[in-house]
Amino acid sequence: MSNIKSIMDYDTVRLDEEKNELVIIDQTKLPCEIEILHLKTAKEIWDAIYLLQVRGAPAIGVAAAYGLYILAKNIGASNYDDFYKEFSRIKDYLNSSRPTAVNLSWALERMNAVCVEHKSEPIKKILEALLQEAKRIQEEDIATCRKIGEYALTLVKPGDGLLTHCNAGQLATSKFGTATAPMYLGKEKGYNFHIFADETRPLLQGARLTAFELYSSGLDVTLICDNMSASVMKNGWVNAVFTGCDRVAANGDAANKIGTSVVAICANYYHIPFYICAPTSSIDMSIAAGSDIKIEQRPAEEVTEMWYKKRMAPEGIKVFNPAFDVTDNKLIAGIITEYGIARPPYSKSLKDIFAEKARNAAVR
Amino acid sequence: MSNIKSIMDYDTVRLDEEKNELVIIDQTKLPCEIEILHLKTAKEIWDAIYLLQVRGAPAIGVAAAYGLYILAKNIGASNYDDFYKEFSRIKDYLNSSRPTAVNLSWALERMNAVCVEHKSEPIKKILEALLQEAKRIQEEDIATCRKIGEYALTLVKPGDGLLTHCNAGQLATSKFGTATAPMYLGKEKGYNFHIFADETRPLLQGARLTAFELYSSGLDVTLICDNMSASVMKNGWVNAVFTGCDRVAANGDAANKIGTSVVAICANYYHIPFYICAPTSSIDMSIAAGSDIKIEQRPAEEVTEMWYKKRMAPEGIKVFNPAFDVTDNKLIAGIITEYGIARPPYSKSLKDIFAEKARNAAVR
Repeated sequence: MSNIKSIMDYDTVRLDEEKNELVIIDQTKLPCEIEILHLKTAKEIWDAIYLLQVRGAPAIGVAAAYGLYILAKNIGASNYDDFYKEFSRIKDYLNSSRPTAVNLSWALERMNAVCVEHKSEPIKKILEALLQEAKRIQEEDIATCRKIGEYALTLVKPGDGLLTHCNAGQLATSKFGTATAPMYLGKEKGYNFHIFADETRPLLQGARLTAFELYSSGLDVTLICDNMSASVMKNGWVNAVFTGCDRVAANGDAANKIGTSVVAICANYYHIPFYICAPTSSIDMSIAAGSDIKIEQRPAEEVTEMWYKKRMAPEGIKVFNPAFDVTDNKLIAGIITEYGIARPPYSKSLKDIFAEKARNAAVR
Repeated sequence: MSNIKSIMDYDTVRLDEEKNELVIIDQTKLPCEIEILHLKTAKEIWDAIYLLQVRGAPAIGVAAAYGLYILAKNIGASNYDDFYKEFSRIKDYLNSSRPTAVNLSWALERMNAVCVEHKSEPIKKILEALLQEAKRIQEEDIATCRKIGEYALTLVKPGDGLLTHCNAGQLATSKFGTATAPMYLGKEKGYNFHIFADETRPLLQGARLTAFELYSSGLDVTLICDNMSASVMKNGWVNAVFTGCDRVAANGDAANKIGTSVVAICANYYHIPFYICAPTSSIDMSIAAGSDIKIEQRPAEEVTEMWYKKRMAPEGIKVFNPAFDVTDNKLIAGIITEYGIARPPYSKSLKDIFAEKARNAAVR
């Protein structure tokens, strides 16, 4: 890894204001190469999101916001109507890059609202407002991850063994990650955690991304296959499990990368607390329970041909390849948000988290 | 899979008496090709075992016994002393191919004992006795697997969903396998099981071998990643789990391929019976508990480079790669042997199994 500095030396997503470029790490090249991409055109930005060169819901949101700002700056219209027509076209185009990514449309809509809100002002002022909004989206992402990390840190102690699954790391956010936030903040405090990263079949985000970002940041990380989690737990090497989540239901059931529930069941068996790290943006109070969350099924080739296309199972074999699973709320010791830690019963505690969030918004 | 007939059309290991050849399926070529190897020389047979072209403890034992017979037939000495000197040399050479495989030395020692026992007879008679002993080793293997399958079948019903981990299949034995025996026998009876095969990282024996042998034999099998077992269980698709084992302790703790305990913990959580299929040769009454079983650690590259050598984790990353794990006896609903099914508490029931075995031996 001679060419790899600490991942903390890079931003997953960054705006170069002077050159008017979106700067990202190409995640498809990890873990073998760090290639920094400088994106200027709508096509380049669309491709980066579509091809997963930038991935992770929060990181995609930030990339889309900066991307829309960069492209808006190049519009060169002299009146609002012409400007907004082109702005809308670009926004819709970027939004088509990953239609199911919630943070993508959410970030673009925030930018759109700012544009409309400032319609009576000169275009230069609108651009200034768009820049501020994009920066705010990124700052909020960083602040959210830091808060989650601080709350999570109260649950562990120096020298603890921590296990994580998939990549809810810095590479999925602007900084710190969610599940990795206590690990990075712990390093700042000299906590010397011993971290286990599940490789996370079939797409190996744990091996390619989590092991990479923690290792290159100087943390003590050990890679394991998903089916080894019970062994490290039985050996007494794990004091707590932290994972991210894709969506949390109102009752605390949590959908996350396939295999998360296996880790939770094993942690439960070995009496190890299992925590979900969830920005409130991923808690969906309109969904009563995990059984209402639809699970995406993905192509068989992800399993039968690994991630770099060589056959390792018989042609024609049936494959079941769900992208996510749902972890029962009774297996979850706490749901860590930027507004505090929800504890069972979640049907009450998650409401309290949102009440706290509303109070904070009202104060602003 | 155009070139693939049913795996049941082939023997994992077979003696061609006429040509004096050991005939095996090259398991390193599976699942993409069926290549049948015809082995004649000591070097060819040694290589086949060493290179895992034939694998699985019972299959290795049978291959070694036939191999030693084939080579003994070619010795061409005219007196016993000359014959036995060469016989011993060949036996020691074959035994060096996989020094830790218990069945290898066990089968070779059985052949050696027969040789010594018949020392006063003509060499032709000795060879005849060796042939009969090698055949007996294979017949016993087949009979053991069939009995395990028959006992296991009493635990399930037609249409059930079954899950297995790693390969305790026909490819690891002479016929039927252990964990797969109820599946093959069930097919003969028209039970139409729905089988889930864990891919079994890091070496993918489930994807490459189990999925292959069941699929090519016309069974209904679905391949999953190891971390998907909880999902198929939660969906209600699994009625019982059958796995093989490498070693069972006197208290019923069972060491088997890494990940087996994860499956057992998940099955336990979802109230699904988890069974170990164990020929009595794999039950070690001299070991009190699973904690006394030493777990082999294997090279990091198996995890970081997959099984066909392409990097998918950062250079330098620490890896924990145990080959086996131990499943707590409290997670095991039954241990199925050729002398019946042991049920908890195993400290008593396994003794009963061995008493039954001793009674059978006395009757013969």
